[in-house]
Amino acid sequence: MKLLNHHIADICLADSGKDRIEWSERDMPVLRLIRERFEDEKPLKGQRITACLHVTTETANLMRTLVAGGAEVAICASNPLSTQDEVAAALVCHYGVQAYCIKGEDNHTYYHHIRQALDIHPTLTMDDGADTVGVIHNERRELIGGIIGGTEETTTGVIRLRAMAKDGVLEYPIVAVNDALTKHLFDNRYGTGQSTIDGILRATNMLFAGRTVVICGYGWCGRGVAMRAKGLGSHVVVTEIDPTKALEAVMDGFEVKRLEDVVPRADLVITLTGNKNVLGEKQIIGLKDGAIICNSGHFNAEIEIPALERLSVSKRRVRPMVDEFVMDTGKRVYLLGDGRLINLASAEGHPASVMDMSFANQALCIEYMVNNASTLQAQVYSVPLDIDREVARLKLDSMGVLIDTLTEEQELYLNSWQEGT
Amino acid sequence: MKLLNHHIADICLADSGKDRIEWSERDMPVLRLIRERFEDEKPLKGQRITACLHVTTETANLMRTLVAGGAEVAICASNPLSTQDEVAAALVCHYGVQAYCIKGEDNHTYYHHIRQALDIHPTLTMDDGADTVGVIHNERRELIGGIIGGTEETTTGVIRLRAMAKDGVLEYPIVAVNDALTKHLFDNRYGTGQSTIDGILRATNMLFAGRTVVICGYGWCGRGVAMRAKGLGSHVVVTEIDPTKALEAVMDGFEVKRLEDVVPRADLVITLTGNKNVLGEKQIIGLKDGAIICNSGHFNAEIEIPALERLSVSKRRVRPMVDEFVMDTGKRVYLLGDGRLINLASAEGHPASVMDMSFANQALCIEYMVNNASTLQAQVYSVPLDIDREVARLKLDSMGVLIDTLTEEQELYLNSWQEGT
Amino acid sequence: MKLLNHHIADICLADSGKDRIEWSERDMPVLRLIRERFEDEKPLKGQRITACLHVTTETANLMRTLVAGGAEVAICASNPLSTQDEVAAALVCHYGVQAYCIKGEDNHTYYHHIRQALDIHPTLTMDDGADTVGVIHNERRELIGGIIGGTEETTTGVIRLRAMAKDGVLEYPIVAVNDALTKHLFDNRYGTGQSTIDGILRATNMLFAGRTVVICGYGWCGRGVAMRAKGLGSHVVVTEIDPTKALEAVMDGFEVKRLEDVVPRADLVITLTGNKNVLGEKQIIGLKDGAIICNSGHFNAEIEIPALERLSVSKRRVRPMVDEFVMDTGKRVYLLGDGRLINLASAEGHPASVMDMSFANQALCIEYMVNNASTLQAQVYSVPLDIDREVARLKLDSMGVLIDTLTEEQELYLNSWQEGT
Amino acid sequence: MKLLNHHIADICLADSGKDRIEWSERDMPVLRLIRERFEDEKPLKGQRITACLHVTTETANLMRTLVAGGAEVAICASNPLSTQDEVAAALVCHYGVQAYCIKGEDNHTYYHHIRQALDIHPTLTMDDGADTVGVIHNERRELIGGIIGGTEETTTGVIRLRAMAKDGVLEYPIVAVNDALTKHLFDNRYGTGQSTIDGILRATNMLFAGRTVVICGYGWCGRGVAMRAKGLGSHVVVTEIDPTKALEAVMDGFEVKRLEDVVPRADLVITLTGNKNVLGEKQIIGLKDGAIICNSGHFNAEIEIPALERLSVSKRRVRPMVDEFVMDTGKRVYLLGDGRLINLASAEGHPASVMDMSFANQALCIEYMVNNASTLQAQVYSVPLDIDREVARLKLDSMGVLIDTLTEEQELYLNSWQEGT
Repeated sequence: MKLLNHHIADICLADSGKDRIEWSERDMPVLRLIRERFEDEKPLKGQRITACLHVTTETANLMRTLVAGGAEVAICASNPLSTQDEVAAALVCHYGVQAYCIKGEDNHTYYHHIRQALDIHPTLTMDDGADTVGVIHNERRELIGGIIGGTEETTTGVIRLRAMAKDGVLEYPIVAVNDALTKHLFDNRYGTGQSTIDGILRATNMLFAGRTVVICGYGWCGRGVAMRAKGLGSHVVVTEIDPTKALEAVMDGFEVKRLEDVVPRADLVITLTGNKNVLGEKQIIGLKDGAIICNSGHFNAEIEIPALERLSVSKRRVRPMVDEFVMDTGKRVYLLGDGRLINLASAEGHPASVMDMSFANQALCIEYMVNNASTLQAQVYSVPLDIDREVARLKLDSMGVLIDTLTEEQELYLNSWQEGT
Repeated sequence: MKLLNHHIADICLADSGKDRIEWSERDMPVLRLIRERFEDEKPLKGQRITACLHVTTETANLMRTLVAGGAEVAICASNPLSTQDEVAAALVCHYGVQAYCIKGEDNHTYYHHIRQALDIHPTLTMDDGADTVGVIHNERRELIGGIIGGTEETTTGVIRLRAMAKDGVLEYPIVAVNDALTKHLFDNRYGTGQSTIDGILRATNMLFAGRTVVICGYGWCGRGVAMRAKGLGSHVVVTEIDPTKALEAVMDGFEVKRLEDVVPRADLVITLTGNKNVLGEKQIIGLKDGAIICNSGHFNAEIEIPALERLSVSKRRVRPMVDEFVMDTGKRVYLLGDGRLINLASAEGHPASVMDMSFANQALCIEYMVNNASTLQAQVYSVPLDIDREVARLKLDSMGVLIDTLTEEQELYLNSWQEGT
Repeated sequence: MKLLNHHIADICLADSGKDRIEWSERDMPVLRLIRERFEDEKPLKGQRITACLHVTTETANLMRTLVAGGAEVAICASNPLSTQDEVAAALVCHYGVQAYCIKGEDNHTYYHHIRQALDIHPTLTMDDGADTVGVIHNERRELIGGIIGGTEETTTGVIRLRAMAKDGVLEYPIVAVNDALTKHLFDNRYGTGQSTIDGILRATNMLFAGRTVVICGYGWCGRGVAMRAKGLGSHVVVTEIDPTKALEAVMDGFEVKRLEDVVPRADLVITLTGNKNVLGEKQIIGLKDGAIICNSGHFNAEIEIPALERLSVSKRRVRPMVDEFVMDTGKRVYLLGDGRLINLASAEGHPASVMDMSFANQALCIEYMVNNASTLQAQVYSVPLDIDREVARLKLDSMGVLIDTLTEEQELYLNSWQEGT
Repeated sequence: MKLLNHHIADICLADSGKDRIEWSERDMPVLRLIRERFEDEKPLKGQRITACLHVTTETANLMRTLVAGGAEVAICASNPLSTQDEVAAALVCHYGVQAYCIKGEDNHTYYHHIRQALDIHPTLTMDDGADTVGVIHNERRELIGGIIGGTEETTTGVIRLRAMAKDGVLEYPIVAVNDALTKHLFDNRYGTGQSTIDGILRATNMLFAGRTVVICGYGWCGRGVAMRAKGLGSHVVVTEIDPTKALEAVMDGFEVKRLEDVVPRADLVITLTGNKNVLGEKQIIGLKDGAIICNSGHFNAEIEIPALERLSVSKRRVRPMVDEFVMDTGKRVYLLGDGRLINLASAEGHPASVMDMSFANQALCIEYMVNNASTLQAQVYSVPLDIDREVARLKLDSMGVLIDTLTEEQELYLNSWQEGT
């Protein structure tokens, strides 16, 4: 068998990657059912898909599903640090996917890989952070005519794409997978919640019990991490810019403070805001000696690393994924994972069972776009409610959980307004 | 001073009612600020308002706010059991509000009171369960022409009103206060959560620790109660009909079961679904000896009480708010508060500090309808986002909580799509 | 039937008291089993018991058990505010117990009642706070010769009795029921935890979510209340004098502070230390406007009420069990239940199911003392381990909980030291 | 410099080991203070210490402390899988400690290493599981005369040593460090709690939210893990053999079941009992397809691995630390870390900040034995209370936590019995 085009770290890792992909597959029963149907029905026959996603074992199972559906697939990374090299190798060797991604690639290579993955002339794109859409709109506009549509996985990407749509510059339809209840209520909250903690544990082996942990941002990701840090015995303090979310955090029993007011007593600061320079120069100056800082938001712009470097007299790596910065006052600050998504940089990203739902939505939305190509506009669409509910239903089934159903009388009651007190 | 029209239990309770209303007012700083502004600006001058709400100390502070704004106000109860008689007396004696409500009134009197409250020929209505809207549309249609609009407080009412709007029979505009984030995220979750537990404690003095508590419905109210029962050490089992909510409950660590499968081991069952006959004949038959059942949903239809009575050979009151039903098998079932909202029947409803936000929304929405009377259609509207955020902001201020604000650079970043990875 | 001697509030309350005692009995299956055995065996025949306990429905079921065992019983209150008058009436009318206790009795009457209860010339005493022992040793020493022994229910009493034993002045044997695992691990933690919250809810109807609640003392009671306040969404701060307990509180995720440092941001302060003047003048001065303070420790000495009165220009009752003190600065402080045990003053004390275990220990320890009268010294004894385990076993049985048992091989393994890694 | 005797995996790992030991040291402020004092005072001058402990970065800091105190030290592993090879290398190269330990050594080598570490003719021993004591008493009895005493770190070891003392065969004094409050309340609960979860996460990357997790044993370790699994969103079921602990688990909101009754719905089973064959043949047969099983108790006897192998038709390693066993029914069971302590096999053991307290107790108890050699008997001693409290005090100081102190009046009050109600 001739190998597909690829640019990866080490093809010899393919078998070990395959083992790990199969391990994940155990926890992805919904995607498995869809893959089995796709194998029969081949709904993606003739499609070419460029996927710019975190190259993890779970993503590999999504790629297998697309290939099973009949598509030709090329994958590149959506973050320079998140690639699992053995997964990339297995995709090329065992699953018939072109892969362009190497863990730790520099910024130049990162974008080069996106361009390579676009060379298949995609009819569909999949993004986690909108980078493929960005490259297509900025420099590969000739591809636009051949594209049916694309999907977007994450909040940050959806914000960018909505801004593009609002400015009238978005050129093809996007389904915001992140909008699915079975995606953002689960992946962002339970997935990011646990995997962020996991990444910090592997990087530092710190005890969470008794520590003051500051969570910047109380969106779905932030509240997931806040809940888990509390569950591990930390004293959690939340920072927010939105008054309603701030109030929710207060009512959930958290202290809510301005970041600059709380940094002097923070043992650990985690940013998950979707914004930039959240932990900026002013806040970094206020940190106490020994503070650990990291990011679990999409881009590595949330911590103002240039300011951290400017304020420091020395920097050294003290453990894998842990850099010690010493300020001229002698104060030490520990930055994890270069400020990139800590759950991917230092752990394995979201557990398979939560990605199962996100990626089931992805696969079904790709199929939906193919089936509805003629009617879609160059807008950002939400996931159709039917798909969302179907994913939840399949997931419950796979867990053996039975739920109640409405009686006819109850259906009628909910739709009526005539019965009184 | 000549007393206003009224039909209440005992006017002599007025002073004690006033003390309790002032006690609540301590915890309603947002409504206080609005009342102070209303006193200056008189934005409701010339308006007549019929309010069909739970007649509690917190509601009294809302009524004071409307009166301060210049309105003429008549109040009746939105539930026969929820009236606090001393509050009704104080409204009449001390706060210039007509009141028609007596705790424990029968169904006939209940509707008669609504009609009396409508005799002021309202320009605005306020509902908690849509009963005023119902009476107006069914039998007092002559009032419709004079009505600018109305507000609706609760989920159940909104469901009914949306059904009416969908059928094209709603005749005047309604603002669904329940839709405000600062209402349903707080009142339903934290308010119902705590006050339902409080009502059960007062009725039974049971220990929650170690008990199996079944929560029917995982909407905002249900998850509030589930969270609190867990916080008190119960083993909580959730029942649902919606697969996405069911999955959330599973991920939140609860067992999720069909109600009929879990009743044999339930020590306590609480319904909060907005539906009817949720704990119906089949489920009642399955209950274990000594089980306690109650409802915290809006209507007392959630437990099929006629079935309970049909299945029983005897019934007696064993404590205030606790009725013992004995089945022919000898099994005993304890029904609390006649199946009506247990937090109002047996405790004091939501704490003032949470009603502060709901009622601040109410007051500001009434003002909004007066100011926008000419443009509103006969539809169900959500609370304007500006009002919602303003309420959150005022609440945080009153708690002394400072939050972060976006820098210009950050505002720009969130609105841009040009910056890459 | 001629009524027994008594001094109670109102004999007419007896039937309502009986209903409530029977309601409690539903949740006291362990004590019920013991009562049934006592009825057969009459192990307390010929004994006279003076019980100085909180006169609640649960205590009434303990008294019934003693009477069933053949004893003559006289009861008085162990706290002037904790008596449930209808229970006292039922004890006299329906259960053959002399009762001397009136809710709200003054200090003089309180001690007079103890003396009256001692007039039966007890062979056994039961205390909750060591007041009977105190009166006997100070002024009724002629009774000592006839006394087999006594039991003591609470930590505070045990501390006093151990101090007496250490000083060589204790004159008869005491079993410290509080030492039983099935007492202090359950009653103090789960009982006090829930009932303290319940008392505060009934007194104030305040929302716990989002509030800063300060718990003074992280003993079994304190950690019970801390756990429950956290479970209701409060931000909980703990104060301690013991470094090991303070560290545990930190590791459990609580903020730990000196009381004077945290009072300026406390919405609610609860004392449960067993010490005096814990919330003293210095700390009261630091409280913020609107702060609520209460005690759930045994004696009402934990809050320095004289200092509070000295610092205030006015005092008035604003709700049952709530007194508002206004300082000359205009600051308002709300004291609940006169600083007495808030769970008894404003709620119903511990739920029956937890008292079931404490009182099963009481009944079995009384029987144990009778059976072992000849060998007991004038010391403070712990509850025999056999009794303790038997209570746990019966309780699990009553809940239908099955647990594992050791195999022979496992028993052997635990007792051996020869098997290696 | 001539290297000390050693048998380790790779001396070249020494520098990387040193970095990691220093990283731990950041979180061990109490041990640091003791080390600094030891350097000045040399209280262990002339002592030879054989330490049989998990060879981790934290243990290395304890060894440094002993060396600083003037002792000659030889270390071997207390578990064949728990050695961190780079730490062993750093101990030899940088810290002047003889080391005999290789991760994954077989049983024969394991015992050979203990014998080599005993060749320094110790005056003191340190154990974590009593293996050194075992070897000395069984085969190296000539050493006994020269030994002042030893310390024991873990519950399992203490059980064995108490059994020896009871049988009259223990030949020298042991201090049971595990008995210190600042050890077992923290290390066992917060340390084992978090690190067990950490080990499982690294081994499996499974999502805890929504899973049914069975915890065998509700001792300090078991409740630590139960609390953390609940904090991560699992539905936790506890098994116990002790009725009192079982009741506590029920009251803490957990389901309590017999193991064989719950295995059919367990996603994950964790044993922490100190016993053998807890998850034995009968329970293994009941496991559901895909179940994950692991142990976090001291010995790898808790899961009956021979039965698992006997029941299986195939076994393969699917991820590092994960073995898949396939039964003849096709059912798959996943065993983690060969059934050895999962927190050491797959993660890094307890975090440094919790070992700080355990090892501060170790260091101070070794000093105590030297200072009190003449008066100690061949018994198992608890840690002196002064040492225990001092460790807690130093830890709070290092965290910047201030606590309250008793006033003279309060000290007096606690010691008096004269003040009444």
